[in-house]
Amino acid sequence: MARWLVILAGGRGERFWPLSRMMHPKQFLALVGSESMLRTTRDRVRTLIDDDHTWVVTGQDYVDKVRENLPSIPTGQILGEPVGRNTAPSIAWAASSIAAVDPDGVMVVLPSDHMIRHTEKFRLLVGEAMEQAEARGGFYTFGIVPNHPETGYGYIEQDGEGSNPRVQRVARFVEKPPLEQAEAMVQSGRYYWNSGMFVFPIPEFLAAVDTYLPTLSQGLHVIGKEPESLDQIFPELPQVSVDHGILEKVASMYVLRADIGWDDVGTFAALARLLPRNGEMNAARGHAVFVDSENVTAISEGPVVSCIGVKDLVVVATQDAVLILSPDRAQDVRQVVQALKEGRHEHLL
Amino acid sequence: MARWLVILAGGRGERFWPLSRMMHPKQFLALVGSESMLRTTRDRVRTLIDDDHTWVVTGQDYVDKVRENLPSIPTGQILGEPVGRNTAPSIAWAASSIAAVDPDGVMVVLPSDHMIRHTEKFRLLVGEAMEQAEARGGFYTFGIVPNHPETGYGYIEQDGEGSNPRVQRVARFVEKPPLEQAEAMVQSGRYYWNSGMFVFPIPEFLAAVDTYLPTLSQGLHVIGKEPESLDQIFPELPQVSVDHGILEKVASMYVLRADIGWDDVGTFAALARLLPRNGEMNAARGHAVFVDSENVTAISEGPVVSCIGVKDLVVVATQDAVLILSPDRAQDVRQVVQALKEGRHEHLL
Repeated sequence: MARWLVILAGGRGERFWPLSRMMHPKQFLALVGSESMLRTTRDRVRTLIDDDHTWVVTGQDYVDKVRENLPSIPTGQILGEPVGRNTAPSIAWAASSIAAVDPDGVMVVLPSDHMIRHTEKFRLLVGEAMEQAEARGGFYTFGIVPNHPETGYGYIEQDGEGSNPRVQRVARFVEKPPLEQAEAMVQSGRYYWNSGMFVFPIPEFLAAVDTYLPTLSQGLHVIGKEPESLDQIFPELPQVSVDHGILEKVASMYVLRADIGWDDVGTFAALARLLPRNGEMNAARGHAVFVDSENVTAISEGPVVSCIGVKDLVVVATQDAVLILSPDRAQDVRQVVQALKEGRHEHLL
Repeated sequence: MARWLVILAGGRGERFWPLSRMMHPKQFLALVGSESMLRTTRDRVRTLIDDDHTWVVTGQDYVDKVRENLPSIPTGQILGEPVGRNTAPSIAWAASSIAAVDPDGVMVVLPSDHMIRHTEKFRLLVGEAMEQAEARGGFYTFGIVPNHPETGYGYIEQDGEGSNPRVQRVARFVEKPPLEQAEAMVQSGRYYWNSGMFVFPIPEFLAAVDTYLPTLSQGLHVIGKEPESLDQIFPELPQVSVDHGILEKVASMYVLRADIGWDDVGTFAALARLLPRNGEMNAARGHAVFVDSENVTAISEGPVVSCIGVKDLVVVATQDAVLILSPDRAQDVRQVVQALKEGRHEHLL
């Protein structure tokens, strides 16, 4: 009964265009720090789980990139999806693949594109969750202590009835809420942000897949027996998140309070918040010159970015694309990607 | 007694960085239209004066570029200055060089980086000035009818006493005025913008140089006799404009009223005013995508420029530099150039 790590690295990251490209999405960028977010994700828990016990689920197009980023992970443990079908198929495919070699293992699921400032705290929590899963079974998630009423995240309500205040039973999952509800939830102190990181025993998870998503279970069974059927079967698997499809339904779902400096770095505005600022509240990643400018974030892959007399902007520059946006419009980068698609400028995507 | 054209193409154009570069200043750019501004300047009067009678004064570094832009101009008629010493030395050098082959010619002096919308009107005016210069001598300039109290230009006051309202004697030149004075001048109806375009008989001009700038005259005499002395003599010539050093002082200075759609395209803001705009007042030269943006001018040499939720900006993009400025700060582009110099980033200039 070993411990296994599964990293989810399938995202396309359109909200980070033009830094991210169709062939180079967010998880392969060094948005924060000097290593790719994928590699940073692996490194964060490497002392807990070694590369031989690490699996990555990604898009077929990205398998080579994952291999470049993490060359010491066994090639067979990088699973390439023909299409993205949300997280339930990704995680269940990894779980059934691992079960073929270790039917009794415990598995840790981590998205590949989040930032965690307090690494040591996080490692302790992962260790604790694995121990609990091994000792008494059940599903564990890390509940991020919210610091603002974010409407872009899902929330988790703790039931507050257990004896251990740091490991609580989950009362319910809440999808991305409207602002008013988010405010009430944050104020109540009973809610966490859903970080999308999970720990559970593999057989218990696969049994839940059997129960709640039987078509997924059957499809993966076929793929396991006839790997050449992947391209045909996978696109037909149910497109559903692991939260919604499985974890909301299981009885023994627990949340560990995680005050770990987490950020999903989901948009340029989020990235801008993470960069150090100068006296005029300007921030630069890459080479920038600010003249009489204020609250400007410049992120460049090469071109020098110069600003004169402007304020409240996020500027992203690459050799072939420049994006300038109001910080409150960071969610709308996809509109530009869409416009470029429609204008048949796929070479820029 | 022939007619000669002298094009002044020595500017460094720092206000157009990063489009202009140290080795590729404004006159070589196609800022407006599809040809370089230098070539457009020549083409505008080509039916009046052919290439064999055309001279260009530029920096030594730019001689090859001028030759590429205007391959049919005789090589010996492209004069390369070792350093810029303002317009009096440039024009006097050209005049004395032409006088060596045609001592009695008339010469037209045109800056190489202005835009003129009403080309036919302009040609008629140049023709008229040349005829006047040939018939009765004197110095002629084209007075642009001002449409706003620009403080970045020099002004010319007409004396209003001649019989021909379209060719007036010049009462005085006024250097770049403060706003209040500019407003009063524009309101009075007696003032024109000084366009820096001149017509005069070469011998009369050279006599005026002799009288008002004798050291310039002597220096050019030495250069004429000993061309190898250029690099030594030229830097010591008086650094003065032809307006201030000579034309303000001559008695027979005339101004032709020129309502020719002139613009010196002196800054990105000026260029922005010349570009066609869409319904949201956005303008693009090059590939741009505007989402919920207003009054944005995007000028790109290649990279696609995308804007989301921003307004009142000028954006200039090249492969290695991006400039974002408030339209009212277009005069300050040199500050960025200066900052890059100080930061030892000369490769970007």
